[in-house]
Amino acid sequence: MSEQDIHHMREALRLGRSAMGSAWPNPAVGCVIVAGDQIVGRGATAPGGRPHAEPQALAEAGAAARGATAYVTLEPCAHHGKTPPCAEVLIKAGVARVVVAVGDSDPRVSGRGIEMLRKAGIEVVQGVLEDEARTDLAGFFLRIEEGRPWVTLKLASSFDGRIATASGHSQWITGPEARQRVHEFRARHDAVMVGAGTARADNPMLTVRGLDVPRQPVRVVVSRRLDVPLMSELARTAGEVPVWMCHGPDADKSLREAWQGLGAELVECRLHGRQLEIGSVLQALGERGLTRVFCEGGGALAASLLSAGLVDELIGFTAGVVIGAEGLPGVGAMGLARLEEAPRFRLIEAAAVGGDIMHRWHRA
Amino acid sequence: MSEQDIHHMREALRLGRSAMGSAWPNPAVGCVIVAGDQIVGRGATAPGGRPHAEPQALAEAGAAARGATAYVTLEPCAHHGKTPPCAEVLIKAGVARVVVAVGDSDPRVSGRGIEMLRKAGIEVVQGVLEDEARTDLAGFFLRIEEGRPWVTLKLASSFDGRIATASGHSQWITGPEARQRVHEFRARHDAVMVGAGTARADNPMLTVRGLDVPRQPVRVVVSRRLDVPLMSELARTAGEVPVWMCHGPDADKSLREAWQGLGAELVECRLHGRQLEIGSVLQALGERGLTRVFCEGGGALAASLLSAGLVDELIGFTAGVVIGAEGLPGVGAMGLARLEEAPRFRLIEAAAVGGDIMHRWHRA
Repeated sequence: MSEQDIHHMREALRLGRSAMGSAWPNPAVGCVIVAGDQIVGRGATAPGGRPHAEPQALAEAGAAARGATAYVTLEPCAHHGKTPPCAEVLIKAGVARVVVAVGDSDPRVSGRGIEMLRKAGIEVVQGVLEDEARTDLAGFFLRIEEGRPWVTLKLASSFDGRIATASGHSQWITGPEARQRVHEFRARHDAVMVGAGTARADNPMLTVRGLDVPRQPVRVVVSRRLDVPLMSELARTAGEVPVWMCHGPDADKSLREAWQGLGAELVECRLHGRQLEIGSVLQALGERGLTRVFCEGGGALAASLLSAGLVDELIGFTAGVVIGAEGLPGVGAMGLARLEEAPRFRLIEAAAVGGDIMHRWHRA
Repeated sequence: MSEQDIHHMREALRLGRSAMGSAWPNPAVGCVIVAGDQIVGRGATAPGGRPHAEPQALAEAGAAARGATAYVTLEPCAHHGKTPPCAEVLIKAGVARVVVAVGDSDPRVSGRGIEMLRKAGIEVVQGVLEDEARTDLAGFFLRIEEGRPWVTLKLASSFDGRIATASGHSQWITGPEARQRVHEFRARHDAVMVGAGTARADNPMLTVRGLDVPRQPVRVVVSRRLDVPLMSELARTAGEVPVWMCHGPDADKSLREAWQGLGAELVECRLHGRQLEIGSVLQALGERGLTRVFCEGGGALAASLLSAGLVDELIGFTAGVVIGAEGLPGVGAMGLARLEEAPRFRLIEAAAVGGDIMHRWHRA
């Protein structure tokens, strides 16, 4: 693996990231075709998952693909679906060399894409920037391996961890730059998820605003009883941008019909005691194709995700304001007795964003 | 003001900072003497406040001070006290030029130090890196102008703002690097302050450890009823490192005698309702010479300081661990109804410290 390989794979990763949030249920893959030391083709998984990155990059390269090197962030697919497998497309285009960041764990592909290429006499290099690719594609892998999407939990709070005053006053704790960053994070996820309490208290739209996105994230509401007002912004816009209501088996029939009538999709999930079983909610979302979910609270939903060990990434926005202990906590009760039981995360990034700070953590 | 002036003043500021925490009741001033473009003398206020920075720097410079430039972070003093005024010492040493960062607001000095120098034919430049010097010396100015010390409030908490589990388990939320940084902050303050609840729950020493300091910070405990165990670490070591007990007029007589017998200093303060009036506590500390106080909680003391608008700097250490809403909050009840009433701070610094983040804020 050369400096040049790393350089071009970085560009392929950048392309792949640009497809995050819109490529689902397929992985957000990036591909560049390099002839000599010139990039002659670029591609990323298209919105909705097709076409894949490779045929797009090859189409741009045209005849220049012959004898060139293809950089792909994920092992090219090997199975015939709606379109021919990407490994075959690369062979037909006459590339001489394929550099892959990470192997696929989809049983229909795993190792077979690379085998097809090698059998056709193409030199294959594997593992270039593998860790980065594995992180970027973690939601895709989780869905294949555990049936659930990657979960990012965001908390925008005061210095002392409060998300509103006792009277529910929360606009605005963080500044406009932090709120803009939230829209950027939403854009890189397949869905934005909130609990019913937050949907009632904030009446949010949960769409990406101020950014051009090829596909809005699905709005997921976790509400055992479907008790979100039918006059809410979510209800009003359910026909335009998808709304998925995750509810319990005991949700009222007329409420189900009302939400369906508004255009929302109903997702029935199992109960655990008096609450929705959060693992079953995520499984249902995985079954429907979601690979990355951005949870924006509230405290009860955050606490169940954390308690169940189902948070992969934490994003904190902390403002320089202090609200005090009567304020609404960003994370609800978790029932921990000892510190050793508390979920731990490792720091990925910390930075100033406007007048606030932003900090990202991954599961330890 | 030249590049060189800024460069040398930066060194004087660095020296001044090294005296923070030990110079009280005097300001932590730095001084460098520059002949040609060589530093020939350096000084900082000595532990306990004397000698001042200027005579020490001049002593190191010796004959080289003649015709040289002196950089001083604070206007040289002009009044005869136990020693001759620094302005006079600079004149006698024959310096040709004095560069000052910030004027003194002590009525015995204000402007008179500079006047003395000018009358002696010395060129005086004022205002070089004035903002930095004003920030460094803010505790000294606050004490003169408002009678109280600068207050830094530190909170080491989980991602969700908790300082312990419901059962009081708090060791360790943050990592060893963050704890080491706390010792560095303690070393730069004249006193470390906690409430009685924290003194009881954590049985802390509150000393600077792992660092060489010329003078340990005073340990201040805010305890209306003096209800801190007489077998605690603070009680045990009160004869070695100063302990000041801030108590109410109704504190038990035998407890007063017991603490005095252990070597603690008793500081009687006014009540406000059922609590010590925090403004009167800080006035009492200012009267006794403190210019910088580092408060390490707990939640009730933090909340009274914040509610009274008496926190000048906030320092947060945030760990990648989530405890949930039953956990002990870092800041107690503040009685705020609306977000507009909440105290606001502006970001000064945010950085990773070991596996945690550290963020500093100043009063907005």
